Amino acid sequence: MHQTAIIGGSGYSGAELMRLLAGRKDLRIARVTANASAGQRVDVLYPDLAGRVDLIFEEFDPDATGEVDVAFVALPSGQGMTVVPSLRERGIRVIDLGGDFRLQAVGEYQQYYRHIHTAPGLLKEAVYGLPELNREKIARASLIANPGCYPTSAILALLPALHHAVVEPQGIVINSLSGISGAGRASSVEYSFTELNENVRAYKIGVHQHVPEIESVLRAGTGRDVSVSFVPHLIPISRGIYTTVHARLAKTMSDEDAAELYESFYRGMPFVRVKRQIPQIHSVVKTNYCDIYVTVQPRTGHLIIVSVIDNLVKGAAGQAIQNMNLMFGLPETEGLGV
Amino acid sequence: MHQTAIIGGSGYSGAELMRLLAGRKDLRIARVTANASAGQRVDVLYPDLAGRVDLIFEEFDPDATGEVDVAFVALPSGQGMTVVPSLRERGIRVIDLGGDFRLQAVGEYQQYYRHIHTAPGLLKEAVYGLPELNREKIARASLIANPGCYPTSAILALLPALHHAVVEPQGIVINSLSGISGAGRASSVEYSFTELNENVRAYKIGVHQHVPEIESVLRAGTGRDVSVSFVPHLIPISRGIYTTVHARLAKTMSDEDAAELYESFYRGMPFVRVKRQIPQIHSVVKTNYCDIYVTVQPRTGHLIIVSVIDNLVKGAAGQAIQNMNLMFGLPETEGLGV
Amino acid sequence: MHQTAIIGGSGYSGAELMRLLAGRKDLRIARVTANASAGQRVDVLYPDLAGRVDLIFEEFDPDATGEVDVAFVALPSGQGMTVVPSLRERGIRVIDLGGDFRLQAVGEYQQYYRHIHTAPGLLKEAVYGLPELNREKIARASLIANPGCYPTSAILALLPALHHAVVEPQGIVINSLSGISGAGRASSVEYSFTELNENVRAYKIGVHQHVPEIESVLRAGTGRDVSVSFVPHLIPISRGIYTTVHARLAKTMSDEDAAELYESFYRGMPFVRVKRQIPQIHSVVKTNYCDIYVTVQPRTGHLIIVSVIDNLVKGAAGQAIQNMNLMFGLPETEGLGV
Amino acid sequence: MHQTAIIGGSGYSGAELMRLLAGRKDLRIARVTANASAGQRVDVLYPDLAGRVDLIFEEFDPDATGEVDVAFVALPSGQGMTVVPSLRERGIRVIDLGGDFRLQAVGEYQQYYRHIHTAPGLLKEAVYGLPELNREKIARASLIANPGCYPTSAILALLPALHHAVVEPQGIVINSLSGISGAGRASSVEYSFTELNENVRAYKIGVHQHVPEIESVLRAGTGRDVSVSFVPHLIPISRGIYTTVHARLAKTMSDEDAAELYESFYRGMPFVRVKRQIPQIHSVVKTNYCDIYVTVQPRTGHLIIVSVIDNLVKGAAGQAIQNMNLMFGLPETEGLGV
Repeated sequence: MHQTAIIGGSGYSGAELMRLLAGRKDLRIARVTANASAGQRVDVLYPDLAGRVDLIFEEFDPDATGEVDVAFVALPSGQGMTVVPSLRERGIRVIDLGGDFRLQAVGEYQQYYRHIHTAPGLLKEAVYGLPELNREKIARASLIANPGCYPTSAILALLPALHHAVVEPQGIVINSLSGISGAGRASSVEYSFTELNENVRAYKIGVHQHVPEIESVLRAGTGRDVSVSFVPHLIPISRGIYTTVHARLAKTMSDEDAAELYESFYRGMPFVRVKRQIPQIHSVVKTNYCDIYVTVQPRTGHLIIVSVIDNLVKGAAGQAIQNMNLMFGLPETEGLGV
Repeated sequence: MHQTAIIGGSGYSGAELMRLLAGRKDLRIARVTANASAGQRVDVLYPDLAGRVDLIFEEFDPDATGEVDVAFVALPSGQGMTVVPSLRERGIRVIDLGGDFRLQAVGEYQQYYRHIHTAPGLLKEAVYGLPELNREKIARASLIANPGCYPTSAILALLPALHHAVVEPQGIVINSLSGISGAGRASSVEYSFTELNENVRAYKIGVHQHVPEIESVLRAGTGRDVSVSFVPHLIPISRGIYTTVHARLAKTMSDEDAAELYESFYRGMPFVRVKRQIPQIHSVVKTNYCDIYVTVQPRTGHLIIVSVIDNLVKGAAGQAIQNMNLMFGLPETEGLGV
Repeated sequence: MHQTAIIGGSGYSGAELMRLLAGRKDLRIARVTANASAGQRVDVLYPDLAGRVDLIFEEFDPDATGEVDVAFVALPSGQGMTVVPSLRERGIRVIDLGGDFRLQAVGEYQQYYRHIHTAPGLLKEAVYGLPELNREKIARASLIANPGCYPTSAILALLPALHHAVVEPQGIVINSLSGISGAGRASSVEYSFTELNENVRAYKIGVHQHVPEIESVLRAGTGRDVSVSFVPHLIPISRGIYTTVHARLAKTMSDEDAAELYESFYRGMPFVRVKRQIPQIHSVVKTNYCDIYVTVQPRTGHLIIVSVIDNLVKGAAGQAIQNMNLMFGLPETEGLGV
Repeated sequence: MHQTAIIGGSGYSGAELMRLLAGRKDLRIARVTANASAGQRVDVLYPDLAGRVDLIFEEFDPDATGEVDVAFVALPSGQGMTVVPSLRERGIRVIDLGGDFRLQAVGEYQQYYRHIHTAPGLLKEAVYGLPELNREKIARASLIANPGCYPTSAILALLPALHHAVVEPQGIVINSLSGISGAGRASSVEYSFTELNENVRAYKIGVHQHVPEIESVLRAGTGRDVSVSFVPHLIPISRGIYTTVHARLAKTMSDEDAAELYESFYRGMPFVRVKRQIPQIHSVVKTNYCDIYVTVQPRTGHLIIVSVIDNLVKGAAGQAIQNMNLMFGLPETEGLGV
């Protein structure tokens, strides 16, 4: 039986990891840490887990974590890099759900995340954990940089079109709508119910830390010089990301051509469903699916791609488990409801 | 032209006061204070007020407030009593939207609010500002204790039935549902969107500070020995209170009898609408109305009364302005959209 | 491998049955019927089921259903009784999620449901499918009347207190808040988003068809002459029922006494969790749990009980599967995420 | 005192017109028609109007409408053109809130609206009622085509940039998010609460009837050959439109340059507020404002413009009243809360 640990388990991604792992017979959550909640029962903070997860939050201690086969690090960006080195030194494989190991360029990291990177030496062993792009590397990896929620939806939307060079790589427009759980367990007025309900606001236009992630992964994955204009919006739903992409067509094609190109690209990938109808958030909530729709607009010369995911599942905990399955040689879909 | 001040204007009640007062030609908001936001433009914190309120939050200074005719105090309970004495010493009439002057019994205040009362000497001049109960006293008052949101809905629901002794005063059951703005501009996780959306929770069962307010006002207003079991619930709406009351009938009556008794009681009171249909929150949002429905349940011997208000209007700022209108000898409805 | 059919599978209860059954290795959905959607793929109507349920809605034909071991009937009340006889004639065990077989008194059925009962002869074999009350009878039953959503929450809240006679059985006050999915896949203006969002309304006060269900089951289950005043409210959440009960105490007891009495009553029942904190909807959404909290109010002499369920799971499809598990001799929790 | 009529007053735009007109001392709603609700009290359908609007819905009869100075037509597109000719024949000035007189090209109307146009002869007298573009023409008009909700937000976002030729007119990307009231008083499953809550879906990509309206008005207003790719999305809020525009810059400029250009363009226009912060829906709900934010993205060469309105006010009833004010020679802001 595989042993796992969750480091920083008191946030929404940590709780989602516990929800998804709790039912598994083939592995065990050996421990869950959360320094600020140490000593508290997990099911007091997350009462839905009562009867399903019988654990107490512990303080993080890398030595106590020694026996596990994989550690999920679900700390905020900037904190992951403070614990990952100690885990790797003890030979523990790590899946980091934060942003600290997603960008190979330290300067870019520091510009967008506004932290000094304290573990740059680990970047070379970090594998970007998008199974639809890096399945083989993930299986052999010791350190996974689990993708961001927005990048998961945007990269899956764009990979086929860029790979086949049917769109121009420059000036791609990405509008994304995110559920509020994407902001984490937040205690500021701006994330309070009264401020967000019946409201919408765009934020971090042009400066969001997911811009370099989207661009660098697409460049590395397709060899094209990609630039994107990314506008994230907060909307009053709890879960889900809705991404609408406009890219300029590089060649003439029909809706049918486009759909077939996408279907062909994602054949055999169990969590991407190419749809012939415009997707909706409801179709993917609490699942690890990414639903994608593609349509050609001859009037304006755009390819429009819509993709939807659950930010806490395919955009975080579910994808982390998909990566763990690959690392353990298990079926990619194990424990993910398919 | 009347001059007004708002003390503690950065919260939701303060903002609602500004929204309601901004359009008035017969009075002026001379100043608005908010110590933690001093120096900030009002329309940066509340962008909807841009172009309508051209004020900057100031620090509270009772001497600078001297010229106003009335001061609205919109501070949290426990803080109102720290500023009201200095205003009253300068002869300024005060409408306090907090709870500090609502309970005549200091011991009860200290038990439920868990503060020492520091201005008990002012309690004897405080008038409970429910115009439907105390219209004449309000007109002559120098210090108004503006009612709580839950008590406004519960007391208006019960006054006619208790006044006419058609229900037993003991063991009345009050279930209330409140929009989240009732919790104020909150910066804790428990009031965050993700925690409250798609959720419901009851809280403070049997210990809410509005229990003694409801009971003492009903006792004073009807001369009956009232006791209530009050269960407040938070539900995911921004504004509104929905109150459902069960009282045991003391005599046989029909639905029609009950409705007529209520209509007769509230005749001439412009903000109470007795309805023949079950009310809904939508009917009163952003208005100063209280809609009330009453029905007799012969099977169980209960009178059921449903009442709805907007917690920020009839439950706070609107009622405060209704009180101010009475104090100034203006039509009760002035500036309140009727 | 067990074979199942879902009759009337295009509504929310039908879809939830498919979601819960889709992952089972020990049984198979042989067919799903929905006359108005016959010929349509299930995953077009419910796109979240794409890749998980590969079925097409069929017209109902009892002969074609012959091979199944159990049929779930998820038709609206009044329609269930038109298909159940034909299924029972063919020896098929039936779990009816509608209201047609829940009331033994035909007159009461006709008064509250406003249909003529066309299959009264089947009532004597119908077992009320609340496992916490009727586990043994369910295991042997051929026709299960699956409980209503409100009754599930109300009956579980009251059973221990009435069984132990710690409360008076008369004049019990039940306030319930329901998510909108309880109204089914509705196509009327009154259930549209704009009408219900940011709104609350009570409905069917005193005349709801779940009143006789709650009373008759509690009478049969506890031998006490129960009467309840039940006020259901629609609130803007998708799923969940929040029930707050006031019953008059028949004896003095402490909170601890009450909690222990409830814990003892529900010991060994895997889906009832007696809590020491006030429950919330979030704890039970998409689960088959019922969370219950109990507190004594000495001031007013009430026992207050709060219970929460997911109306589509413990209040419909999940409970139906719990019943099926018992009928098949399987662990009660099989496929229900525990 | 001006006399007005509302034709088709039972929908959300009609109700909003009544809310906004009810408080006016300088005019009167002489009659409100709604064939399907004829004979019903307005305040039964819209209980919030109880005590404020004392009218009964009538059947439409152009002769009975003869005495009014202006008629608001709030019928669905396709129905407006069936009543407007009879009103115009009687010399009544008309403000049509539907789409029937917004497109000068009948062919385009028929392509996008999928109706035969039955009153093309009136198109030449129709003035597009966007006061920020056509103030003088509106004052003299006899027939106003009140703009669509999406076009109002998109055109106000783009007018300054296109007028000053700082962006390329071709291939402009417009993403809009709309509250559900934009769909009207809907009675289909797809607009039910359960289907839309916690959900998002794009719809009518590339084929929405507002595409030719946006393009033709911008062409006529700026003399540039505009083409847009417009993707509307439904999100779970009741009111509001959030529009995010990407246009390719035609010249180098700074954020400050862009903001000043917009401020200068809209100087003296009371309902457009150019903001230095990213706008939010809350700032404009229940107001006639359009808030606009503009930012330059040098990396990708885009000008990004964000605009927000309330779809029922600036996007419908409020703008109609702004137009009426201009037609009557009143201050543009009269009765619109400024």
